[in-house]
Amino acid sequence: MNRVSIDTATPYEVVVGPGALAELPALLGAARCAVLSDRRVAELHGERLGPLAAGPLLAVEPGEASKSFAVLERVLDFLIAADLDRSSVVVAFGGGVVGDLGGLAASLFMRGIDVVQCPTTLLAQCDAAVGGKTAVNLAGGKNLAGTFHQPRVVLADTDPLATLDAAELRSGLGEVVKTALVGDPELLDLLEQEAERLLGRDADLLAEVVTRCVRVKGAVVAADEREGGERKQLNLGHTFGHAIERVAGFGTIPHGEAVATGLVLAARVAAADGVLADRDLPERLERVLAGLGLAPGLPELRARHGIPLDADELLAAMRHDKKGTAARPLLVLPTAPGRLVVDRGLAEATLRAALA
Amino acid sequence: MNRVSIDTATPYEVVVGPGALAELPALLGAARCAVLSDRRVAELHGERLGPLAAGPLLAVEPGEASKSFAVLERVLDFLIAADLDRSSVVVAFGGGVVGDLGGLAASLFMRGIDVVQCPTTLLAQCDAAVGGKTAVNLAGGKNLAGTFHQPRVVLADTDPLATLDAAELRSGLGEVVKTALVGDPELLDLLEQEAERLLGRDADLLAEVVTRCVRVKGAVVAADEREGGERKQLNLGHTFGHAIERVAGFGTIPHGEAVATGLVLAARVAAADGVLADRDLPERLERVLAGLGLAPGLPELRARHGIPLDADELLAAMRHDKKGTAARPLLVLPTAPGRLVVDRGLAEATLRAALA
Repeated sequence: MNRVSIDTATPYEVVVGPGALAELPALLGAARCAVLSDRRVAELHGERLGPLAAGPLLAVEPGEASKSFAVLERVLDFLIAADLDRSSVVVAFGGGVVGDLGGLAASLFMRGIDVVQCPTTLLAQCDAAVGGKTAVNLAGGKNLAGTFHQPRVVLADTDPLATLDAAELRSGLGEVVKTALVGDPELLDLLEQEAERLLGRDADLLAEVVTRCVRVKGAVVAADEREGGERKQLNLGHTFGHAIERVAGFGTIPHGEAVATGLVLAARVAAADGVLADRDLPERLERVLAGLGLAPGLPELRARHGIPLDADELLAAMRHDKKGTAARPLLVLPTAPGRLVVDRGLAEATLRAALA
Repeated sequence: MNRVSIDTATPYEVVVGPGALAELPALLGAARCAVLSDRRVAELHGERLGPLAAGPLLAVEPGEASKSFAVLERVLDFLIAADLDRSSVVVAFGGGVVGDLGGLAASLFMRGIDVVQCPTTLLAQCDAAVGGKTAVNLAGGKNLAGTFHQPRVVLADTDPLATLDAAELRSGLGEVVKTALVGDPELLDLLEQEAERLLGRDADLLAEVVTRCVRVKGAVVAADEREGGERKQLNLGHTFGHAIERVAGFGTIPHGEAVATGLVLAARVAAADGVLADRDLPERLERVLAGLGLAPGLPELRARHGIPLDADELLAAMRHDKKGTAARPLLVLPTAPGRLVVDRGLAEATLRAALA
């Protein structure tokens, strides 16, 4: 089992590896707790919760639609019905939707109780479950209402990754490539050389990939818990990615796939902007993504999902992204593996050319 | 104008006095902002906002029913429609409901933007607007979903207090008596000697009362921002008070009136529990409350509102209060003006006798 310490104001541990969930009962001790999950995860993997599977458990519908204000209220009502108090713990057992929803409900319930994050998807283990960001969507956009609420501990059990479908695995790999680009050039090499083994869900390799991603993200988050500066790095590919998700209709294109294509767009824009230190980066990135079954560019993404993704609509969506100010989206651009520039404001023509 | 500094992790100032709202434009500078108010306050006092009255403004229905999840979502949608971004400011202009709702919306919007609290009731100026607690109600209880989100500044303009009706003034005075009991024995003397002038809304006296309350609350809050210990003092009278509000039906008996009666109940329970240092306290408290037009006990409160407030129902409601754990309500008891004991667990018979 790999253990990564996240050195936030109140430090916590991320436990990565097969069977990590077995640590749950000892971890919770006598604390009263309630489990939030989704129907599919609860069916497939509920037994991994051991005695907790018999306790209060709410399984929401799988999918982005559950990240709504209405469902959040339902979760809070459930925590009251489960008779939780200020010393209780919410266990969020599922993918990113469950982690966001459970984390937000825990941070609001009685003005904040502990949450243990038990991510079951590659995306959530590598990214969403670490760092304390929680959110639900509003009519006006994704993740617009939320909090920063660090978990008490994260149990990233790699066993449930075996049941991910190909699209979920791909989506997770999109964030893995982003993380490699942000802070782990060796991980980028690994992704390039071992794509086959990864797509074959080699257990050891998955555990290594998750651990490396948690280390990178943990270091960034510890340096900047509330996204005042350094943490902006983690938005690499996300301004483009969110615009793609928004124009396609949230939930149509998986988050990590949209981010993956966003990475290439960011690299191309970096080239046009003259900030690239590694001139081969855009093409190498395209090769890595293609090797992992991800769309290496907008044309491929359009074709794969049969969605036009009009350049003007993407531009308009970027202006509404919550990064930067309303007037001018600020981008994170890669210049080489492990090297970025942040808060880069770009001419509209440069963006338009990349999106064409 | 009186200025009280609240020494929380990020310190802020409370400005108290007639015309304090005139400082709003200079304070906000060029920041984009949106005003949350209620219909009545906006009609009566909107012009006091100066240029802000013409900007984005949402006026919710007055009353506790607006402290709901549904209205919270509406406020967040309004902040998006008002085109706010991460550097924007929410101005909460109204009583406790508006302050709680606006503070919570600000703390959630894009995971947290600034709020300026502009309380317009005595209750909100003396208590709710200082300290950063925000909340909405859930079906299962009052204030069960919320955050800690300190304001950027609080403008407690005493001019709008002139239009408070008698019930609102009384409700505020209930929290004033509590605050005096928690930490300002001289304020208790003042309330005893100057009840007439206070009920006549003497402007200088109101400003002094608000300033004294803000000083007491500010000191407690600065020592314990997230209610881990010292801040529990401020719950004096509230476990009884919340039970009274719940059994009567929230919104039926004004909060401060319920708390006032809760103070007497707490003092009587303190006497029965043998912790009183000042043996005259319960009777003196009854005198002070009666002088301010507040019900000095459960019988008077029952008679005034024509509600039975059954002892068994009150006991059951106390068990569900979020103070302490679900199993056993922990009380704050006064032992003398300015002296308290906290986390006092009591025999059911003692509680029952006080509630009979």
